Amino acid sequence: MSLVVVGSMAFDAIETPFGKSDKIIGGAGTYIAWCASNFTQPIKQISVVGGDFPQEELDALTARGVNLEGVQIKKDEKTFFWSGRYHLDMNSRDTLDTQLNVLENFQPVVPESYQDCEFLMLGNLVPAVQRSVIEQLKNRPKLIVMDTMNFWMEVALDDLLKTLAMVDVLMVNDSEARQLSGEHSLVKAAAKIMAMGPKYLVIKKGEHGALLFHEKQIFFAPALPLEDVFDPTGAGDTFAGGFIGHLARTKDISFDNMKTAIIVGSAMASYCVEKFGTQRLREISDVDIESRLNEFVQLVNFDISVG
Amino acid sequence: MSLVVVGSMAFDAIETPFGKSDKIIGGAGTYIAWCASNFTQPIKQISVVGGDFPQEELDALTARGVNLEGVQIKKDEKTFFWSGRYHLDMNSRDTLDTQLNVLENFQPVVPESYQDCEFLMLGNLVPAVQRSVIEQLKNRPKLIVMDTMNFWMEVALDDLLKTLAMVDVLMVNDSEARQLSGEHSLVKAAAKIMAMGPKYLVIKKGEHGALLFHEKQIFFAPALPLEDVFDPTGAGDTFAGGFIGHLARTKDISFDNMKTAIIVGSAMASYCVEKFGTQRLREISDVDIESRLNEFVQLVNFDISVG
Repeated sequence: MSLVVVGSMAFDAIETPFGKSDKIIGGAGTYIAWCASNFTQPIKQISVVGGDFPQEELDALTARGVNLEGVQIKKDEKTFFWSGRYHLDMNSRDTLDTQLNVLENFQPVVPESYQDCEFLMLGNLVPAVQRSVIEQLKNRPKLIVMDTMNFWMEVALDDLLKTLAMVDVLMVNDSEARQLSGEHSLVKAAAKIMAMGPKYLVIKKGEHGALLFHEKQIFFAPALPLEDVFDPTGAGDTFAGGFIGHLARTKDISFDNMKTAIIVGSAMASYCVEKFGTQRLREISDVDIESRLNEFVQLVNFDISVG
Repeated sequence: MSLVVVGSMAFDAIETPFGKSDKIIGGAGTYIAWCASNFTQPIKQISVVGGDFPQEELDALTARGVNLEGVQIKKDEKTFFWSGRYHLDMNSRDTLDTQLNVLENFQPVVPESYQDCEFLMLGNLVPAVQRSVIEQLKNRPKLIVMDTMNFWMEVALDDLLKTLAMVDVLMVNDSEARQLSGEHSLVKAAAKIMAMGPKYLVIKKGEHGALLFHEKQIFFAPALPLEDVFDPTGAGDTFAGGFIGHLARTKDISFDNMKTAIIVGSAMASYCVEKFGTQRLREISDVDIESRLNEFVQLVNFDISVG
């Protein structure tokens, strides 16, 4: 039984108030794999790259326990490229350039060896591509988690809703939850979105933490207050990778364990933003992760004995 | 030994997307007293009202254990009046009218019977007035908590900084913390503000919760996700009232107990916003408060056992 991850593998060029990156490795699938591989291996990756994607990057993922059988390499095409510039507040950004390249006609093929999929993480991608992976699996995974973004709500809402109806957990940020539901109150938004299919909803609020909704239950996870956010790129994908990685490792999909998974995701995201791209995720050890998880415990731990 | 509260007692007229209030009772001091009286009595109030302030409102506070000896009643003048309209997001508002009236030349006089002050809550008010109360106390209180707002940073920064240097805990919201420090990162902002005097800093983030800083320690308290915020007026004052009320009741000013105090403040603020003005604060019982505190425990409670 295994974790299957679907998501882009890309080149990014990033500008922040702190500096400018070269063309570096990015993509939702990449961040998820680097992050989740701390918790569970193998990870069975589904993606597409061009002939320009560095072999050493593929080798590094393989060494990390990421199975690349489901990653198509289109030798004569170019890898997806995104370039963006963050504003001073690090919450908003302008897209400077998007070159879909290999993503334009991406048709994922699920290898036979991936059919043991128990946990499926659908990284942010064309909703129809996400759905195609679900449909190719002969047995429904124990848990399907879907990340998406406002862009798909604008250009592919019908497809998004169809895919949404097939998943267990949806992850969006607060403005996307409001956009998708038409409700300002996140409590009302969550109720409407869960009525669209997913039994669980994670609302990411960046520096304000994250909320997990399930039926009438709510869990509020903080974000670690940081001195500096160096590069927010991939923080949401890393959060997803920590979330699904913890669940796949523990094989426990109870609400209580999802709460822990959200803390794990938040801890990993707090590392991700400390350096450009996936750099920090490649450096950190189990000891670092434990230490940051303990910071989260300290951050929210209180004693109520009023009355 | 006792809790002394300094703050305005006022008339408010409030418009929200949900409705419009009559001219109702408001003011930072009023909210703080109504809230804190759930936790400790007597409360020794310092404020000023005009001859138009209803006697039954004063009686209601007295019945609640609020000592009004320090509340000046200027029979021939009018009570402070504020009118505002909230935007749809309930986070921003326009001031429609402000009539300072009795507040214009308010010179607080600390009664002799207040000299046993152990806990001093300086509600949002002219910084020089806040300082005058500190200076009139013959013995320094065990804990001085100060609330303030951006307005005073713009029109009375020098006075604000002088007062700030004399207090133990400052409460501001996130944009005020950024304005006061010139730092976007709240971690950096907190370090700069604590260097101005207060050993503790509370940063209120509305629906995103609150942060407590002390030396290198940080505590993150959630806000209760609510279906509707009916009227946010007084939420910050109510938060302050719950915070100081809990500390005065327990007489424990450790960092750990301040964390609990922040949860108490957050719970009380979540009640405050459910109805116009102080209405909800007047209705709730100890059982309601216990029940909401338990919701906070549920909201943030998680188990970490990774590794």
